[in-house]
Amino acid sequence: MRAVTFQAPGEVRVGTVSDPVLREPTDAIVRVTLSAVCGSDLHIYNGRFPRVPPGAILGHEFLGRVEEVGSDVTRVSPGMRVVASFFSWCGTCAACLAGQMSQCQHLETFGFGQLAGAQAERVRVPRADTTLVPVPDALADEAAVMAGDILSTAFFAAERAGIRPGDTVAVVGAGPVGLLAIQCAALYSPVAILALDRVDERLRLAASFGARPVPADADATAAVRSYTAGKGASAVIEAVGSRESLNLAIALAAPFGTVSAAGVFAERDLPVDMARLFNRDLTLRSGLGNVPAVIGRVMALTVAGRLQPQRIVSHRMPLDEAEEAYRRFDRREALKILLMP
Amino acid sequence: MRAVTFQAPGEVRVGTVSDPVLREPTDAIVRVTLSAVCGSDLHIYNGRFPRVPPGAILGHEFLGRVEEVGSDVTRVSPGMRVVASFFSWCGTCAACLAGQMSQCQHLETFGFGQLAGAQAERVRVPRADTTLVPVPDALADEAAVMAGDILSTAFFAAERAGIRPGDTVAVVGAGPVGLLAIQCAALYSPVAILALDRVDERLRLAASFGARPVPADADATAAVRSYTAGKGASAVIEAVGSRESLNLAIALAAPFGTVSAAGVFAERDLPVDMARLFNRDLTLRSGLGNVPAVIGRVMALTVAGRLQPQRIVSHRMPLDEAEEAYRRFDRREALKILLMP
Amino acid sequence: MRAVTFQAPGEVRVGTVSDPVLREPTDAIVRVTLSAVCGSDLHIYNGRFPRVPPGAILGHEFLGRVEEVGSDVTRVSPGMRVVASFFSWCGTCAACLAGQMSQCQHLETFGFGQLAGAQAERVRVPRADTTLVPVPDALADEAAVMAGDILSTAFFAAERAGIRPGDTVAVVGAGPVGLLAIQCAALYSPVAILALDRVDERLRLAASFGARPVPADADATAAVRSYTAGKGASAVIEAVGSRESLNLAIALAAPFGTVSAAGVFAERDLPVDMARLFNRDLTLRSGLGNVPAVIGRVMALTVAGRLQPQRIVSHRMPLDEAEEAYRRFDRREALKILLMP
Amino acid sequence: MRAVTFQAPGEVRVGTVSDPVLREPTDAIVRVTLSAVCGSDLHIYNGRFPRVPPGAILGHEFLGRVEEVGSDVTRVSPGMRVVASFFSWCGTCAACLAGQMSQCQHLETFGFGQLAGAQAERVRVPRADTTLVPVPDALADEAAVMAGDILSTAFFAAERAGIRPGDTVAVVGAGPVGLLAIQCAALYSPVAILALDRVDERLRLAASFGARPVPADADATAAVRSYTAGKGASAVIEAVGSRESLNLAIALAAPFGTVSAAGVFAERDLPVDMARLFNRDLTLRSGLGNVPAVIGRVMALTVAGRLQPQRIVSHRMPLDEAEEAYRRFDRREALKILLMP
Repeated sequence: MRAVTFQAPGEVRVGTVSDPVLREPTDAIVRVTLSAVCGSDLHIYNGRFPRVPPGAILGHEFLGRVEEVGSDVTRVSPGMRVVASFFSWCGTCAACLAGQMSQCQHLETFGFGQLAGAQAERVRVPRADTTLVPVPDALADEAAVMAGDILSTAFFAAERAGIRPGDTVAVVGAGPVGLLAIQCAALYSPVAILALDRVDERLRLAASFGARPVPADADATAAVRSYTAGKGASAVIEAVGSRESLNLAIALAAPFGTVSAAGVFAERDLPVDMARLFNRDLTLRSGLGNVPAVIGRVMALTVAGRLQPQRIVSHRMPLDEAEEAYRRFDRREALKILLMP
Repeated sequence: MRAVTFQAPGEVRVGTVSDPVLREPTDAIVRVTLSAVCGSDLHIYNGRFPRVPPGAILGHEFLGRVEEVGSDVTRVSPGMRVVASFFSWCGTCAACLAGQMSQCQHLETFGFGQLAGAQAERVRVPRADTTLVPVPDALADEAAVMAGDILSTAFFAAERAGIRPGDTVAVVGAGPVGLLAIQCAALYSPVAILALDRVDERLRLAASFGARPVPADADATAAVRSYTAGKGASAVIEAVGSRESLNLAIALAAPFGTVSAAGVFAERDLPVDMARLFNRDLTLRSGLGNVPAVIGRVMALTVAGRLQPQRIVSHRMPLDEAEEAYRRFDRREALKILLMP
Repeated sequence: MRAVTFQAPGEVRVGTVSDPVLREPTDAIVRVTLSAVCGSDLHIYNGRFPRVPPGAILGHEFLGRVEEVGSDVTRVSPGMRVVASFFSWCGTCAACLAGQMSQCQHLETFGFGQLAGAQAERVRVPRADTTLVPVPDALADEAAVMAGDILSTAFFAAERAGIRPGDTVAVVGAGPVGLLAIQCAALYSPVAILALDRVDERLRLAASFGARPVPADADATAAVRSYTAGKGASAVIEAVGSRESLNLAIALAAPFGTVSAAGVFAERDLPVDMARLFNRDLTLRSGLGNVPAVIGRVMALTVAGRLQPQRIVSHRMPLDEAEEAYRRFDRREALKILLMP
Repeated sequence: MRAVTFQAPGEVRVGTVSDPVLREPTDAIVRVTLSAVCGSDLHIYNGRFPRVPPGAILGHEFLGRVEEVGSDVTRVSPGMRVVASFFSWCGTCAACLAGQMSQCQHLETFGFGQLAGAQAERVRVPRADTTLVPVPDALADEAAVMAGDILSTAFFAAERAGIRPGDTVAVVGAGPVGLLAIQCAALYSPVAILALDRVDERLRLAASFGARPVPADADATAAVRSYTAGKGASAVIEAVGSRESLNLAIALAAPFGTVSAAGVFAERDLPVDMARLFNRDLTLRSGLGNVPAVIGRVMALTVAGRLQPQRIVSHRMPLDEAEEAYRRFDRREALKILLMP
């Protein structure tokens, strides 16, 4: 089958690899319909995740149809349209029973060198009964594909931000995650969502989603303070994953506020403004999205039109053009790319 | 009157200064009975708080009797035994009405160069009706003096750690704050409290408070993981305020756990292990103790014998020996010093 | 001045009474612009609140301008447009400091025989600094008048229902409180709000507010179960205050769900389906609306257009026509009546 | 094998019945070591649960050793010492995945006519992988047997009461559930636990567990108000399950307090003081104990000595004396009886 593999920093390749086969009776094989390119794929592409070996099939955000199931699989069957969380989870360990599936003791992620990824024609899904989720008929492919990672991650970060109706929220970064975080924050009816980014085009998009655009320049903190009568935003969602964005988020938070980071952090010694966390009684939360805990809500809200993830899709490209897709995404010429095997 | 003033890094002086007088009708003058030396006094002593000017009277943790009140003071009267939170607060701003008094819009702290401190014979207390709290008869002076800062701060940090009965808790640092944090964490009935410190004597004290001592050396993380079957502590209280202690606390936290920092942080760019916060879905909280919100509970629990702050008092010294007191505290020869004017 | 007084069950009277005067230095006199007739006024009218004596001036939901203030009033001044919570509160007792102003130890309600009511040209407001809230310029009179009781009560009940995005909510009763509860529940982005009432016209109104109408007949429970795939509504807001409505609300709740009652209950022995509360692990909450804790949010959300209380106003009548207003409201010919002195 | 069966109101019989056999590959057969008589067994005995048919084997609180397992059972194996929750649950339905196992869509209870009970030599346990929990070696049989129902139910009720350190708690009823509720409430460090009962002996027992005894007579409410300076108890645990006890619990609650009912309620129209729930902003919670969610904590706390359920055991009797055991328990001559097959 055709698949996208990581080769070296700055290089991915579309090529032919052997088809996946069932290994365990709890496995399923899914024929991929759509596979998205995610911001964390870019981290791999740029060599920030050195654990991903050359040759690894990429892709962890995908939608497809079940093609084959192992003998112990009971909840999904061939022909079903399904989405997977970006990791496989067991459902029976202590973490899973506590609802913390993103910390499953048997967690395996797709497309990071652990499980083969889904930017491919087919993908093997371990523990299919828990990992695969049937997609409601009313949910379009282009929306559903994002439920398995980016949309659920944004929802999880918004949920952890503790937004109450009437609050003012700030979202730092109006890329794909940030734009979806704006949608998710809006579910809690803040009176305003301030979107910060350096790129005008992204601020325009944020505005089209109902946020108030604020250029992420030297005046950003002053602008947010001015808008909030000096107080700051009671909830801030960080959606970039850099030192600058995190500390900007901290600077924007109101006393006793929460900074909920949706960005990917790989640094073990990132400088953080602890003085401000201390002086303002702040809470900082980061994390992998606990996708299985929220994916049902996320899909129901999308069916109901309250979330519109499809609005961030900028490109649909054949899987065979994945090399070009990565280049464009890396140059920030694309917001969200869907690959079609 | 006699008072302790900051002079220069490494130098405090006991001398004679003019007595405080009522300035506003909402002020009170308190004759100080006991005044503690706090860890943050040591930050001033060591020049870490450059905003404290030479000549400032130190001391923000104190107990005394009301001597005189302004014409608008209605809730306290001369002769009452009182303790103050380490800051004066208004009770009427938006922050106070939301129960976030440590972020009062009119907050003024004692002993940091803003309000004159209480390592003195008398101290002026603005907004006495809110700032001063009557001490129950059943509460001994040596316990009550700590309710205004260190004990309430430890309680607040433990409360924000989200401990549930049956959890395992780690406390990083077994100095005065850490020892009281152990007492406060115990209020939530964890099955174990692991106390980490480098100093044997402090670990012995921690053990006498019911904690399990763990040397804070290179093996500390492995020891805690081993004790918790690989999982880590679901709640960690950081009680030092340094880069090392904070990152040790983060390393000890179980997935979805909380690190609640009780230490004082003055750094605007402290390196933090964000990769772990991200990979483990952690929550990090820091903050000034919201003393007025908890001081009533803290005093009731002390009267009931559930908290025993007096057990950390190592020295009682006359106010006139404050210079020696600071030197000893700085050399870590004293755990908690009470000054008697 | 002209004022509406209770005379006997089924009889109110508009007449001339003496003007209120300042009694305490913390009082204010407010010239009333609008005064609403509330469902609890109907309880008085129908003799269900026997403590309200003949001659008592009615009205506890009002808007006006400050006319005169006592010498200790500092936060409001003559000319300001203000709304009051339906009760006067002190802001300094233990309940108020804990944010539980509806349980203020010095609480006095307007228009129930304790404080003179505001269906009058003027009203005396004790403790004006806490009880009166300035109205933002952008907020119209007809919306603002409801912030002091019915809208904040609906918001408080919705808040206590614990709605999460993606839930299904049921609201029992589509009268004035129920319609506003629908608006408030919508702030949390449930995927559906099922509105139950016996009156077609009210169901049509509920539908115009985005709810799904369900006739409150013998099939209501089955209809809600069917809509929720057998599960029931995870949050139910009761907005009537009767035995039937409360038990219907309990019948509709999903396992581990919450029934939040916004209705007024005066019965000390109302039969409740405890077997269902037990078998389904339910939570039942009732209460006076904690207006002061939410009125700021409620007004901000109304300015932002997220709440539209003015949409329930059905009649505007001169104060002198109050007798007719009560008759119409009692016959359910009016949804929400505003009286104009 | 020998087993206790329900015959008619007031009559149980010990007799010989056929041994259970594996029916599903997910079943296990457990040889019973200890089986407790629970308060809800008394409801059956007294005919309050008409659904339990004559001939049904009783008993839902038990401990034993796995004797045989079906082919799909992977987490327990013959020889293991285990306790079961009082119901069998699936672990894979929506309710279970949300952590609400007591509302499992496939829930089956032991000993109520659905699944054969465990007051017998052997019992069949469906879905053994989830329903059975291995008992730590350090936990004595007599303590462990209560983890599957009464102790976990008391813990769950205490957890839902929302107790904070420094609160005052009231427990209505000092029978077996109430005594364990006192132990569980103590885990949250209230400053006082007031225990109410009509029976002196039970009040003495409550006192020996650290509670303050209060006779549940006409003066009880006044006594609790007096003890709490007029305020009431911020959390009240109801541990009887009657009209009187529930309304007494409601009468004792402080404003904004919670009444958490641990008692069994079978009435569909129990008169409740809704006026007080309304006037005091109260929360009332009832429910089946969500045993699987808490049993791990409960066992760990018992091992740690923080819970001591074995202290309520009053009688150990051979299974063959069960008829006498029920009579004694019904006459309140026994507090907690353990039957030994």
